[in-house]
Amino acid sequence: MAQIVMLDSGVGGLSVLDDVRALLPAVDITYVADNAGFPYGTKTEMEVATRVCALAGRLIERLRPDLLVIACNTASTIALAHARAVLDVPVVGTVPAIKPAAEASRTRVIGVLGTQATVRQPYVDRLSADHAGDCLVLRHGSARLVELAEAHLRGEAVTAADVAPELAGLTNQPGGDRIDQIVLACTHFPLLEPQLRAAAAPGIGFVDGGPGIARRVAHLLGARAGHGTGQGRAMFTNKDSEVDLLRPALHRYGLNIDT
Amino acid sequence: MAQIVMLDSGVGGLSVLDDVRALLPAVDITYVADNAGFPYGTKTEMEVATRVCALAGRLIERLRPDLLVIACNTASTIALAHARAVLDVPVVGTVPAIKPAAEASRTRVIGVLGTQATVRQPYVDRLSADHAGDCLVLRHGSARLVELAEAHLRGEAVTAADVAPELAGLTNQPGGDRIDQIVLACTHFPLLEPQLRAAAAPGIGFVDGGPGIARRVAHLLGARAGHGTGQGRAMFTNKDSEVDLLRPALHRYGLNIDT
Repeated sequence: MAQIVMLDSGVGGLSVLDDVRALLPAVDITYVADNAGFPYGTKTEMEVATRVCALAGRLIERLRPDLLVIACNTASTIALAHARAVLDVPVVGTVPAIKPAAEASRTRVIGVLGTQATVRQPYVDRLSADHAGDCLVLRHGSARLVELAEAHLRGEAVTAADVAPELAGLTNQPGGDRIDQIVLACTHFPLLEPQLRAAAAPGIGFVDGGPGIARRVAHLLGARAGHGTGQGRAMFTNKDSEVDLLRPALHRYGLNIDT
Repeated sequence: MAQIVMLDSGVGGLSVLDDVRALLPAVDITYVADNAGFPYGTKTEMEVATRVCALAGRLIERLRPDLLVIACNTASTIALAHARAVLDVPVVGTVPAIKPAAEASRTRVIGVLGTQATVRQPYVDRLSADHAGDCLVLRHGSARLVELAEAHLRGEAVTAADVAPELAGLTNQPGGDRIDQIVLACTHFPLLEPQLRAAAAPGIGFVDGGPGIARRVAHLLGARAGHGTGQGRAMFTNKDSEVDLLRPALHRYGLNIDT
């Protein structure tokens, strides 16, 4: 039976869960939201890395998964190498989808929208140099979109007008009017893709790392991926009242809350 | 039944175990040596902190201890606050015994012998300012003494001549000839106290944090400390051939190796 654990600071990783489910319907998934540590994007690197490693250590010991997915760009860019060095299960991280964005771009101007902690990582420079060397790569860090995505999943109304200022942080930069591909480099952001599309100029494409993660998980699980009951459950590190507000959304993702 | 987990990169924490045993004979102790990560003193802060947090997370989940002792100065100065922030059992750390050394010093010149990673910590400045404001506090970082303590426990001969150059790194500094108290600010170093005493000028006192840790553990466990079978076992993160060499020494500390 194949079982994977997906870890995020909040519910952003649900966008990744959707992609994994689409490719691997039989895998059992435990989705863990470290809401006691939310948000990661405004914490120091040491705080994020130690939280992720401590939590991953506990989950591996308790659930004995076949692999762990860090379904959070911030945590992946900061902690992935360290988690791999100390944990003895395969760990799949989240990488900003700069490569597919560069492949799709006609204007050769790409936008990267992530948390502040993600967009300032040298990692993004390397991905840009490796895969988008002939593109202008503009970045914008937004903590607000993380909050809006969480609010959206709690059932609050989030509109194109709410997300427009965050998009403008990208498109108002010099050259930003020529952006034709936007990388959603935070797993929360695809949860607001309808609003982002409505707020963006027509023809702008949005790409995220979810499909790539799903393919990587499928590759690592191999034949085991077919063996499972396809069950999903969600765990929260802080079982406060907010969690109840997420219950309907989690059910839509096929997850029961484990209390 | 009271059970504690003690964690170190190697066998240095056995000096702390001795002090805890002396005060709390009934407590069950699992001693964990992260020999796969040994030595900590030459790693980056991020590497040490993530190792300690991942390992602590696993041990807490697997063993459900009443408390965790980080029996390593390097790991404590770097990771203690982060471990406490993410783990839900009490965590006791190791603090350089500058306060008792200052209380005992007549010459008002104190030496601090630790790993490089420990002696460069701002933490040591604060302890010096708080508890030894009228003392000259000299420091020397030695990775060699850690290696020698490990070799000693594997049954290799370690003499006063072997440790003398490390002491000289302290006493040869300006004012070092007036040192009358030396803080052993690495839990490995008390394992070589006979050799250090033989190499040092007569009358120099050696102090370490072990007794203070034992009192802190006793305070946190309270009445539970009396309930237990007094058993001890040792676990290693890398079960290589070196571990067998340690078996006789571990038996002297009342520990069986858990394989």
